[in-house]
Amino acid sequence: MGTDQGDINEAHAKWINAVNAGDLACLLGLMTDDAVFLTPGQAPIGRSGFSANFSAAHQQFRIRCVSELEEVVVVGEVAYTRSRDVLYVTPRSAGEATQLAGDRLSVYRKQGKGGWLLARDAHTLTLSSPGAVR
Amino acid sequence: MGTDQGDINEAHAKWINAVNAGDLACLLGLMTDDAVFLTPGQAPIGRSGFSANFSAAHQQFRIRCVSELEEVVVVGEVAYTRSRDVLYVTPRSAGEATQLAGDRLSVYRKQGKGGWLLARDAHTLTLSSPGAVR
Repeated sequence: MGTDQGDINEAHAKWINAVNAGDLACLLGLMTDDAVFLTPGQAPIGRSGFSANFSAAHQQFRIRCVSELEEVVVVGEVAYTRSRDVLYVTPRSAGEATQLAGDRLSVYRKQGKGGWLLARDAHTLTLSSPGAVR
Repeated sequence: MGTDQGDINEAHAKWINAVNAGDLACLLGLMTDDAVFLTPGQAPIGRSGFSANFSAAHQQFRIRCVSELEEVVVVGEVAYTRSRDVLYVTPRSAGEATQLAGDRLSVYRKQGKGGWLLARDAHTLTLSSPGAVR
């Protein structure tokens, strides 16, 4: 284990890699049991809702997420992070590729020797034109 | 000062009352100097961006926010909260009233004797039909 800051950077990188690999088991191992996710236009979801949505999305689409971690603030056993995300979503059958862009506020909780786990996450991603700059 | 939990409940209630009263000075007193706000479809903003947006919105619209605090988790000097918000927006001149609904993830930082201040905030509010149930 490195520093808290380094561990959270690593947890974030693992998360994005797992999203892009469609590795739900890995993602579930990176979040707390009581994790909650907020998404524009949807009701909050926990682990089971996340699993259902993630599996359905990967069945229908090829998904590539590029995420830039903009800040990591560690305060004792809690940390909060902010990232700038772009999500490229391509239908596996016919249809146009779409691109979403926005920001993500996440809260991590420190576990004993288990490192840091994602506990709360809210993102503001909305449809954006390919190549658009806000 | 009461309990941390109670103080955060109070900070949340003061925030919503100040939003509805158009009281920007009060809101600025309830947030940290480095506060950041995330909104769907917009770049992140700090205190000055918040001030500009808030003033412009209140000039154009009558705004009423109803917010239900769904959880408050205090961990030492940090707390995170989740609320379910509905925003009623009515143009001061002609035009249709609109309604937005969604959720809010906020991070508070404990100040010495100054209580708790809002440090980070991300909401997922999107347009919703009046009376719509998600």
